[in-house]
Amino acid sequence: MTLKDWGYRLFPGLKWLHGYTGQDAVADMIAGVTVGLTVLPQGLAYATLAGLEPQYGLYSAFVGGIVYALLGSCRQVTIGPTALLALMTSRHTGFGLGSGPAYAILLCLISGVVEMGMAVLKLGALVDLISLPVTVGFTSATAVIIGTSQLKGLLGLRGGSGSDFINTMRSVLGNLSQVRRGDVTLGLVSITVLLLLRKLKDVKFAGRVRSLRAQQLISGTIWVIATGRNALVVLVTSVLAYSTCKQMDTCPYILTGKVKSGLPNITLPKFETTILDKNGTELTQNFEQMVSELGPSMLILPIIAVLGNVAISKAFGGAGLSATRELVALSMSNICGAFCSSMPVTGSFSRSAVNHASGVRTPLGGCYTSVLVLLALGLLAPYFQYIPKAALSAVIISAVIFMIEFEVIRPLWRCSRRELLPGAITFVMSLAVGVEIGLLLGVGADVAFLVYRAARPVLSVSKLQTINGINYILIRPKHSSLYFPAIEWVRSGISKALTTHGTAPVVLDCAHVHDFDFTAARGMGSLHKELAKANVPLFLMSAHKDIGVILKESTSIDFPTIDCPDDLECILEQTPDYELHLQIAAPLVESRISRGTSDAVDACSPSELSRLNGKST
Amino acid sequence: MTLKDWGYRLFPGLKWLHGYTGQDAVADMIAGVTVGLTVLPQGLAYATLAGLEPQYGLYSAFVGGIVYALLGSCRQVTIGPTALLALMTSRHTGFGLGSGPAYAILLCLISGVVEMGMAVLKLGALVDLISLPVTVGFTSATAVIIGTSQLKGLLGLRGGSGSDFINTMRSVLGNLSQVRRGDVTLGLVSITVLLLLRKLKDVKFAGRVRSLRAQQLISGTIWVIATGRNALVVLVTSVLAYSTCKQMDTCPYILTGKVKSGLPNITLPKFETTILDKNGTELTQNFEQMVSELGPSMLILPIIAVLGNVAISKAFGGAGLSATRELVALSMSNICGAFCSSMPVTGSFSRSAVNHASGVRTPLGGCYTSVLVLLALGLLAPYFQYIPKAALSAVIISAVIFMIEFEVIRPLWRCSRRELLPGAITFVMSLAVGVEIGLLLGVGADVAFLVYRAARPVLSVSKLQTINGINYILIRPKHSSLYFPAIEWVRSGISKALTTHGTAPVVLDCAHVHDFDFTAARGMGSLHKELAKANVPLFLMSAHKDIGVILKESTSIDFPTIDCPDDLECILEQTPDYELHLQIAAPLVESRISRGTSDAVDACSPSELSRLNGKST
Repeated sequence: MTLKDWGYRLFPGLKWLHGYTGQDAVADMIAGVTVGLTVLPQGLAYATLAGLEPQYGLYSAFVGGIVYALLGSCRQVTIGPTALLALMTSRHTGFGLGSGPAYAILLCLISGVVEMGMAVLKLGALVDLISLPVTVGFTSATAVIIGTSQLKGLLGLRGGSGSDFINTMRSVLGNLSQVRRGDVTLGLVSITVLLLLRKLKDVKFAGRVRSLRAQQLISGTIWVIATGRNALVVLVTSVLAYSTCKQMDTCPYILTGKVKSGLPNITLPKFETTILDKNGTELTQNFEQMVSELGPSMLILPIIAVLGNVAISKAFGGAGLSATRELVALSMSNICGAFCSSMPVTGSFSRSAVNHASGVRTPLGGCYTSVLVLLALGLLAPYFQYIPKAALSAVIISAVIFMIEFEVIRPLWRCSRRELLPGAITFVMSLAVGVEIGLLLGVGADVAFLVYRAARPVLSVSKLQTINGINYILIRPKHSSLYFPAIEWVRSGISKALTTHGTAPVVLDCAHVHDFDFTAARGMGSLHKELAKANVPLFLMSAHKDIGVILKESTSIDFPTIDCPDDLECILEQTPDYELHLQIAAPLVESRISRGTSDAVDACSPSELSRLNGKST
Repeated sequence: MTLKDWGYRLFPGLKWLHGYTGQDAVADMIAGVTVGLTVLPQGLAYATLAGLEPQYGLYSAFVGGIVYALLGSCRQVTIGPTALLALMTSRHTGFGLGSGPAYAILLCLISGVVEMGMAVLKLGALVDLISLPVTVGFTSATAVIIGTSQLKGLLGLRGGSGSDFINTMRSVLGNLSQVRRGDVTLGLVSITVLLLLRKLKDVKFAGRVRSLRAQQLISGTIWVIATGRNALVVLVTSVLAYSTCKQMDTCPYILTGKVKSGLPNITLPKFETTILDKNGTELTQNFEQMVSELGPSMLILPIIAVLGNVAISKAFGGAGLSATRELVALSMSNICGAFCSSMPVTGSFSRSAVNHASGVRTPLGGCYTSVLVLLALGLLAPYFQYIPKAALSAVIISAVIFMIEFEVIRPLWRCSRRELLPGAITFVMSLAVGVEIGLLLGVGADVAFLVYRAARPVLSVSKLQTINGINYILIRPKHSSLYFPAIEWVRSGISKALTTHGTAPVVLDCAHVHDFDFTAARGMGSLHKELAKANVPLFLMSAHKDIGVILKESTSIDFPTIDCPDDLECILEQTPDYELHLQIAAPLVESRISRGTSDAVDACSPSELSRLNGKST
């Protein structure tokens, strides 16, 4: 392998440079700048949502682009701050004395390390455990929490935005009298404009104009306005706020306030910080105490980040992407970000969609976004202070409003009502207790269902007759395996069948059962002994060889195995113990058994089998 | 329903009285007294193990017998103190100031209430989640912990016995210099005698004697001695200790000390107590604090109790018993017990075996045990103080030594090595961290395996040809359902198959798949779209009608469904989109498709199907 191959292997991004044309560069630059114009207002807003000063949102917005360009493999993915991670970060930034960034940056670092661990241990598959109803419940609850947390900014109420739905609502409703008219007006107008501009994309004006060039120009302009709507609204409202507040003594809008100018220092994350405790005294928190404060977030935040990233790369990149490669790119974005004062980052669905729509050609597009963000930090930061908070709240609200998904409820109700439960648990508990606990409970409910299915397989029980008239009870577990939680259920099912249908040989159809475990095998052994006491023979039908081995090794019993029900006759004939029983069960047997073995086996034709299958209830 | 019926229904024990003969009474009395002679030394020992004064063991030993006689349905079951529950109780009795009994009795009450809740909610099935390897790991670890906790008593070391394996071992090894010769000798001799007497049962002396009567007498005597060995050893060592200690000034044995004489007061459990905190100051604990101290024990102890009880009633009563009925009997034994100062109780396997061997005829036998225990409390208590602690330790050690089960390791290793892991986790973590956590981790490992099986079904992938030579890829998931954790796996399996075998129509065989959930259905929808982009048709084969409905409702896509692979031909013929693809995949198609629909369907014979089945890898 040459040095070049190794380079490509370590940094798959380098291969984009191979044959990178001027056209590619222009396309990537247009897309990158468009995404940049989206991430600037979002970054400022999400940092505030996370309880940090606005510049941290921009610090988080440039590392991901560069790292992903080097390591990533899906051109549309853009990594940066997201509403969801900001919300989860906000739980750890409220201790005062400027300790917020220390916690956020440490969380960013730890998330990166955990994601790397998940990549190494191939644990990316953990996101498979989050079912669609749970995902929907989770994102919807998150949207509601973020939306309400922005109500304060929108209404012009002072005080930080919390991550706690109930307290936020109580605080907003309790302070309705202090709502500021200027902020509310600006906020509501901004939301209306943002939603209208979003809708604009779908409107076709072009038909009314004849010239093709004019058509292209109009639709191009509309697209730019619709895509850059966040930047546009922020720009217009800032100019408005700047001019108004210069004229008046008191500003009618609450403004963002000073945004620290300049690039972040490249430095180690702080492993120690000072906080204010409940009584207002200063406390030094060492690394251990900080980690214990972050608690389960250190695991749940990375999983959520991976979930978001996987969803995006799946949506845009198809199934061909390497999940591990994506995980490494995400992990390194967080680890490197932590050295540039970034809060936790992941792929942003909305910005990736903008990237895609802007015609990005390679992941290098992210580099242009990064450059724009760095320029903004260096040059525009002094102007950011005039951005009205209500406008930023409007940007967030009109973004998250589309994360609430009602449309899955109807198909769920119609085809799989049971699955509404995990979704509802996730939604309600996320609002009531917190998003992490809500998510865990939802996944727990789903896992409990999986275990329930394995523990309570559907048993099809039927009383049938062999071709020669011997009655037998056919038990067919409709599950691919019999494991420890199911064996008691099967035992009691067989007991019940014997009570209902009267005593007859029992045939357990293992055609669909691919696996037994030790507990189940031992259970079968006890069942065998129990039935033998009652003079009821137990047969396995169509059992795989492996199952026979497991049963033999676990119980030291040779279970009689048959291939089709008619084999019963010859086996029963050869077993004197069961003779008495046979006489009771089927008086006709004596005369027919003389037909011998070969006959009975011949009778095992597919048509006979399908007759049996048809009969079973 | 008459009053009598209601009576029988509420107290199934009453029906035993119907036709209760003198012979029954004699048999029950013999068995009851034998069990009583076992429970007397065990009760004293287990109370000490639980960190309580000896009389609490006897308080726990009489309520179960009476309650079970009224409510139970399995004549062999005897409910009372057990080593396992004593060990679990001991974690909450070490706070000093005589607070031990308050916690133990409250735990007994709460266990009863939780068990009643499990009976009402039919949660008795939760014990199904504990697989055999986990059970073995748990009981073995418990036996080791109990055994080591008795080392102190056996070696004559002062200080209470803890429930913590590592600390106990450290304390024993650190104090080896203080071992008392008298206690060790007495203890080791007692253990030897107990083990020999236990073995005595299996020895056949009778053959050497001619007279039948003498034979019966000898074997009867042996049986009585072997069964009553605990009482015998305790009696002999007590007499020895009494006579030795009267002669000498210093007693060579540590004795049990005063056992409070008389019956326990029938009183409400205490919902408040006083403890010593770490600094030695007195603290009043209210109900809430007591409950929070009991913590997870309030859930795990009842589950363990139910597990023990279910195992016994299954072993002796067969599958016909009502699990709920048994649960109610156990629950009421604990609830009523709590009013008589009992610690938590459950069925004792060893005493139930004694009961069975003694020829018990009805659950009324338990009443005789109770009477004996009450008599002992009233009359014998003053003499109990002379029982050497080493003798009680010997009783416990020679009981629990047989709870360590090595014999399952071999069959597990030979037939299902994977299952050694949950067992080993349970065993090691029980010793290292505590039995409750060990048990939970073991169950967690088992549940993780169930989820893994549902998430990673075996996919059998084969490239096949229809009878007319059209290539297709057959994917058969060997699992009874496709749920959310599995769908990504199936998708990537299909992608891989297309990469390996080249592009061809994909047939997903759903014959063994009984259920899809919403997430899986949506995943199938995305897969369908993805494949359609690559011009690869996707078919479902032998899909159940319900699956079609779920897929249709969830994705609004009509998946083409076939009954056998040969149906492919006519469908492909009717779909112009796929024509190009067909020409590439199978150049012979054009000429053969003219044979028409009916032919293709006819070709779907069972023999063709079995040929396909045989081919798949």
